[in-house]
This record gives sequence, C-alpha cells and structure tokens, in this order.
Amino acid sequence: MAPPDKLLFTPGPLTTSRTVKEAMLRDVGSRDEEFISLVRDVRRRLLELGGVSQERGYEAVLMQGSGTFGVEAVLSSAVPPNGKLLVAVNGAYGERMVRIAARHGIACEAMRISEDQPIDPDAVRQFLRQHPDVTHVALVHSETTTGMLNPVEAVGGVAREAGRTLIVDAMSSFGAIPLNVAEAGIDFLVSSANKCIEGVPGFSFVLARREALNACAGRARTLSLDLHEQWKGLETNGQFRFTPPTHALLAFAQALRELDAEGGVAARAKRYQSNHRILVSGMKELGFVPYLKPAHQGPVITAFRYPDDKRFLFDEFYAGLSRAGMVIYPGKLSSVDCFRIGNIGRLYEKDIRSLLEAVKVVIREMGMPVPVPPPPR
Amino acid sequence: MAPPDKLLFTPGPLTTSRTVKEAMLRDVGSRDEEFISLVRDVRRRLLELGGVSQERGYEAVLMQGSGTFGVEAVLSSAVPPNGKLLVAVNGAYGERMVRIAARHGIACEAMRISEDQPIDPDAVRQFLRQHPDVTHVALVHSETTTGMLNPVEAVGGVAREAGRTLIVDAMSSFGAIPLNVAEAGIDFLVSSANKCIEGVPGFSFVLARREALNACAGRARTLSLDLHEQWKGLETNGQFRFTPPTHALLAFAQALRELDAEGGVAARAKRYQSNHRILVSGMKELGFVPYLKPAHQGPVITAFRYPDDKRFLFDEFYAGLSRAGMVIYPGKLSSVDCFRIGNIGRLYEKDIRSLLEAVKVVIREMGMPVPVPPPPR
Repeated sequence: MAPPDKLLFTPGPLTTSRTVKEAMLRDVGSRDEEFISLVRDVRRRLLELGGVSQERGYEAVLMQGSGTFGVEAVLSSAVPPNGKLLVAVNGAYGERMVRIAARHGIACEAMRISEDQPIDPDAVRQFLRQHPDVTHVALVHSETTTGMLNPVEAVGGVAREAGRTLIVDAMSSFGAIPLNVAEAGIDFLVSSANKCIEGVPGFSFVLARREALNACAGRARTLSLDLHEQWKGLETNGQFRFTPPTHALLAFAQALRELDAEGGVAARAKRYQSNHRILVSGMKELGFVPYLKPAHQGPVITAFRYPDDKRFLFDEFYAGLSRAGMVIYPGKLSSVDCFRIGNIGRLYEKDIRSLLEAVKVVIREMGMPVPVPPPPR
Repeated sequence: MAPPDKLLFTPGPLTTSRTVKEAMLRDVGSRDEEFISLVRDVRRRLLELGGVSQERGYEAVLMQGSGTFGVEAVLSSAVPPNGKLLVAVNGAYGERMVRIAARHGIACEAMRISEDQPIDPDAVRQFLRQHPDVTHVALVHSETTTGMLNPVEAVGGVAREAGRTLIVDAMSSFGAIPLNVAEAGIDFLVSSANKCIEGVPGFSFVLARREALNACAGRARTLSLDLHEQWKGLETNGQFRFTPPTHALLAFAQALRELDAEGGVAARAKRYQSNHRILVSGMKELGFVPYLKPAHQGPVITAFRYPDDKRFLFDEFYAGLSRAGMVIYPGKLSSVDCFRIGNIGRLYEKDIRSLLEAVKVVIREMGMPVPVPPPPR
C-alpha cells in the first residue's frame, strides 16, 4: 500500500478532492454525445463564473496543455502583425508574456516595475498616451512569483478608456477572487484547470469577448494554439480540433459541481482567505517575514523571506517538510531569497495548522531557534 | 449508478484498463522527487520501446497537449529558417504537417499521392535528388485517415542515404508495430500517451537522435512547443518547464507496466493483429468492404466503405452502435464515403465479436439485408 499523498502547498498542481479524481475512472469518446455535452456545460459554467454569458457576447475556449499554452494561444492569436503589445511586468509570469511575444516576432513593450510593487493604473494610462501604437495590454492578475494581487479592474478601466484590448493572465486567481470579466473591461482572460477550480492539470481556458475573438480570425501563428479555430471547432460540432484530455475534463466537470456545493466563488474565496490568514499569522509567530506588504498580498500564495541564519538551507527545509508529507515551493524572485507557500486547492484550516506544526519541527531539526531570526534588511 | 463505459473502437482516446485509470487517484507535486523520478523512468522506457537509449545517443522528450502539439513542436523546432521540409502525404495527418509548416512560414513541399497508395520510397529518393534544398523529410507511419501503414523503414533508408533529417508521425503505430528508431534512420519520432501504450490523453512524446535535437537550439518559433528547451528542462532538473499533466503521467507509468506484463510490443502487436483479423473477416461476412487493399492495411484502424444502399445513413448507424455501447469513428477521406473502426486499446476478441454482433443487429434495425450490398464501384 502506497503512503497517503502529500499535501500540496504549491501554486499547482494542487491537492484535489477524492471525488474529483474518481471522476476520471472512465473512458469516454472525445466525439461522443456525452462528452460533447459535458464540454458545452463546462464552457457555459466558466462564463457564469466570470459573470458573463454567450448572450452577453462572451465565449469560453478550452485549450490543451498547461496555462502557459493558453497564454501563448491568446498572445499569438490576438495581436495582429501590425499590432503592438504592452506587458505590465512585476514578476516572472509577466516576463514570460514578453518572452512569448518575442518568439512570435510580436512588437512588444515591457513596462517593468519592482516585484514588490503592484502595477500602477496611472502609469499604464500615461504609457498608453505616449505610445499610441500599442494595441494590446497584458498583465497578470495574481502574480504567482510573489503572491501579488494586481489591480486588474483599474487597469481594465484604463485600457477600455484608451480603446486598447486587455489580456489578463488570471491563472491562479480565477475562481479564488470574484471578478466580473465584462465590468473589468477584460477582452481575454486565461486560467487553468488545476488552479482555483480545483481540477487536475491538462488544459487551460480562455474567456473572451466575442468581438475580440472574432478579430483573431486568420491571425494565429501556430496551428495547435490557434484560439479562433479552436473556438470555431467547439462551436461548429462541439468538439476539440485535436484530441482533448478527456479524463481531465471529466474531473473538471466534477470540480465545478464541488465549487457550487461549496457555495461558489464567494465561499471559496472565503476559505482561501481564511487559509491565508492562518498561514501568515502562524508563520509570523515562527519568525518568518512575508516578502510583500499586506496591502499588496493576494490570498493565493505567499512568498516568505529566508531567515538570517546560515543553518537555513532551503533544500533541507523542503526535504524535511516533504518527509512530513507537506510540499512547499521554491522562490522565483530575481533579487531576494524567498520560498513560497500556496494555500489553494482542497486545503482546510487543519491542513494549514499541520503545515505550521511541521515547519516548527523542521526548523528545530535544522538546529535553528524558534522564532527564527528575521531576514537581513 | 452510471451505465458502464462504452467500448471505444476509435483511434483514441481509447478504452484503457481500470488499473491505468486508478493510477490517477493521486495528487503528486510536479516538482517533487517522486514525480521527477517517475518522469525519468517513463522517458527511459520510451527509448527502450523504440529500441534505443541515451547511451546510444537518443533522447525522449514529453510535451503537454495532444499528438498534434508534439508534431508541431518537432516541425517548428527542427526546421531552420533556411531549411525546407518535404512532407510525403497520403492522408489527413500528412496534410496537417503541411498546414503546420505553412503557419510557421516554413518552406515546404508536399508530395501528394492517392490515399489508397502507400508512400513510395523510390519516389521520395527521386524527389530528394531533384530538390537538393530539402533538409527535412516527414511522413506518417500509420495514416489514421485510412489505416494505411507506410514503409517508414524504407523511407528512412532513403533519407539517411540522402543526408536528410527524418521526422515520423508514429502516433497510432508506436507500441503496436515493432520499430527500431535507430535502424529505421528516424531522427524525430512523435507519438501520444493515449494510443498504443494505452494511457490517457494529455501529452505526446518525441524520441529524438540527440545530435538532431541539439541542432534545434534557438530554432523554435514558439515558447510552449520549444522541443529543445523542453528537453533541456527535463535534463537539467528533471522537471517540465510548465505544469505537466501529472495524473496522465501517473496513468502512463502504469500503462507501461501493463505493456510489460502483456509481453511488450511484440505481444501487443499480436493482440492488435488478431483483433484486426477478426474485425475484418467479420465485417466482410456482413458485406462490408475495406477501403484499402490488404497489403497496405495496418493493424490499427480500418476504413470500411459505405454499402450501396440508401438506407445506410452513417449517423443512424453510429447512434445504433452507440446505444449498444460501442463507439466507432466517422470517415475522413477526401473522396470516398467511409467509416472507421479502430481495434487498439484495451480490446480483446470478445469485444470485437460484440461489436460485430451489434453491427449486424443495427443493420437489420435500419431495414437493410445482411450481408449488405457492396459499395458502388
């Protein structure tokens, strides 16, 4: 008998419910009516979660692969040859959008600010005034690099006012933070199956304003990641153009039912916020210092600075927690040493408290005092 | 209680074993040692199945998405800006490679022949002599459009002799038809998790000669489908660059164990060949005529021509079989009306016989005689 699964305090893949995984104990034909109907329901429900609908001019497109595949599908399908992209960057996932644009030869401006500062809507407005050639604006909602929550609604207002198309990477926020795609002025929102909807990895999804999606016709630079053709395929016969991850879709449909049963996005947001509060206050008691100011910190994942103690070796810390059945995440910051702890997925107060207890034990095993010394200034 | 799953007589997703699906009842961290070790084992085993190894200069790269994503990853990563691709086409999957090349602005020649004829190695040799600017040659091993088995070893010999790089779409053949990648002169072979290894959909894999893979550095036209960077990521820290479909990988590792338990590729090939023989002889008894000559027909999927009877309506035929718990596949031929029946996946003689029985019943329900009238000449 295998040991029980470790709890995943990561940005995904996440700990999912037993019943979500059990939904995968089936084989369904990808062109059979049952599966087509399931895909149709999933797409409708995703629009609902974003506060929009087909009737109100929005579409949901599912795309095989990880979240990055979805982001690349949008960028490489939406920006026309004579267009120009502005990416507002304050972390690795913003930088990734700049890299994607470069691969496709898409003209791109990166507006970079410090990783500990949120995107400033006024600065975006100013930039757009000075750069009338920018046609598309992109940013990350919850920047998983730091756990930063960017003011996507305010930036959306700026983009709309300036008549630019807005692309939002909402990978780790969608389903965790209530957001109305239409009111926020978002033209394309990308998220993934294995984040806050608590499905398993295998596909990403895009919520798009239909007019903006229609404008993508013939623009795509790849076949697999052609967002417009993928949408047309789903609309024409309900099918994916290429083999879909049928089992991941079965799991996702179940995950959506469980999201409903929990009370929808509002209830899930509450659980994640509670997880996050317990985590941060517990870690602070142990001497750890979050990287971000509380005002900028989102409820999804938290970066903690390394304590100022030579005995703190991240690999050892990680391994000790892993032996205790808890998986955390390394840092991804460019300048400051941090590790990250996620609190999304099927995690509850008791799980967060188990993690805090394990952190205390492992710190002591590493010969460090509790609380640990604060990070260097 | 849901009804039992239908049997899938398709080119995939396929019917898989209960134990393959049960392997997905876990959540593992994508950067955790257990998963990294599983990915390492899977890559090593795939090379073994292709008769090659890292020691002998070959590498296995896993790529998120469907098989087409893998094909696009190879084409858009392997052919340099000043290179030229020749695709030998005798079906829809060959055509798809031509479309992919066009999307990326890759110079491409299509050598098209009739869908009922196999690729002719002598014609390829001739073409390469006349087109010294062609650097890469691509073809489909088992052309799922018809079930045609193309002479990939002979074409490989021609490509090697002519000093060109050979790319093989072995989507529905790998694991079903013994093939030594090195002896066949293949530089890049692409297949998918949910074909003859009998895993679930979610990723494709590429077996590549290391020198050819190294030559891809800096050539990729996308970020997500960058074959060389994906390989470097897997080599550097054992991890995928972007979130992998962890559950599909767990299922695949189990599917590989079950392939071993069955007796490897030779034993699986034998079961599929037997399935195929029973299917074709049974369908012939019912009056159906295969599209291809037996000499060109592979053991994976068979295209049958519509009988010459106005009462034969494919949608009705499909629906009747589906009600009986059997899913078949529509045709994809450009000129002739056919439907297709696959015999790969966890299917045995009894399943093929159940299908044949159901075909007979449905044909009678449609008011047609048994045997059905032969197709028009």
